[in-house]
Amino acid sequence: MSLTERRRLPPQTGTAFMVRRGERLKVIDPCGEQVCDLTAFALDNRTEWLSSGRTIDYANTIYVTKGHTLYSNCSRPMWTILEDTVGRHDFLLTPCSPEMFTIIYKTTAHHPSCFENLATALAPLGIAPNTIPTTLNIFMNVIVGMDGTLQILPPRSRAGDHLTLRAEMDLIVGVTACSAELSNNGTFKPIDVELYSATS
Amino acid sequence: MSLTERRRLPPQTGTAFMVRRGERLKVIDPCGEQVCDLTAFALDNRTEWLSSGRTIDYANTIYVTKGHTLYSNCSRPMWTILEDTVGRHDFLLTPCSPEMFTIIYKTTAHHPSCFENLATALAPLGIAPNTIPTTLNIFMNVIVGMDGTLQILPPRSRAGDHLTLRAEMDLIVGVTACSAELSNNGTFKPIDVELYSATS
Repeated sequence: MSLTERRRLPPQTGTAFMVRRGERLKVIDPCGEQVCDLTAFALDNRTEWLSSGRTIDYANTIYVTKGHTLYSNCSRPMWTILEDTVGRHDFLLTPCSPEMFTIIYKTTAHHPSCFENLATALAPLGIAPNTIPTTLNIFMNVIVGMDGTLQILPPRSRAGDHLTLRAEMDLIVGVTACSAELSNNGTFKPIDVELYSATS
Repeated sequence: MSLTERRRLPPQTGTAFMVRRGERLKVIDPCGEQVCDLTAFALDNRTEWLSSGRTIDYANTIYVTKGHTLYSNCSRPMWTILEDTVGRHDFLLTPCSPEMFTIIYKTTAHHPSCFENLATALAPLGIAPNTIPTTLNIFMNVIVGMDGTLQILPPRSRAGDHLTLRAEMDLIVGVTACSAELSNNGTFKPIDVELYSATS
């Protein structure tokens, strides 16, 4: 397994790329307390997308971690989580979006958002904005109270913490350095992604 | 407000229909302990769909009930919950599907499923199977442990319990009488849906 590509996402940005079956994607929080929203689509069928609902159902937990499989809406394995140094990621909430900033933050001016960043990055790869599903919000710390109420707490990730995923099919992938104040303890930091070749 | 249509869904079936803005949809559990999976698409834009992720984010709870708005992936209000005599519905899990029965129940023969029933009912209305999102699983009783683990318990609904929704836009709607043993305390019952005209 050797490093084939490394990208640093500046704060409040996104990018998209292809990952081939067997390749590893390592998502690193270089500074700590920074969320990365991730989504994926099957390269051979762009109507097949990473499904929070199917993944949570089969994993029987809202908190996916090392050893879990992430499934598509067709119930095909898309990713396997190989490493997880944090153990707390969110798979309930959609990426922050212009509308979210209006509704929750009462923002009136333009605000960078993961949804817009994903939509912009994925468009050249043939992904329409309205097909972007609930993302895996890596390092995002959401807890569910007994009454169902959600609390968004600062990420548990510290500098250098990471999540490593193995692609189980050829994928189109979108990732961000999250743009929402509340999700990142009030500051915006970069995210690093590393791609490693498949091992035989 | 007057009743304009009433349908009984036999056990393990689904149906689809249009609901105009302002109309009320009442979903009734006539026998008790029976789940109804519901999804919706904008009539004027079939790429706009009922979004669990945006709804949960804006409601700040996984348990939507009376007074909550259900949002589309474009953050437009699709439904408002007007009445809820149960107060426990699931919005985390995808509809039961052929693959779910294979993976979780280890079923080898064909098993009826909400996904197949929704896909079949929605196809004539221009909805492709792969665009069916996480459904609102009315009366489904899913609890989340402190560690994130899910438990599916018998529905809290008794005979006659219901959920009433007002459409906030013209909608294509799919509903089922759920086909999964675990979700319905081991037996399959019908679901009644009633449509009421808009009030001025």
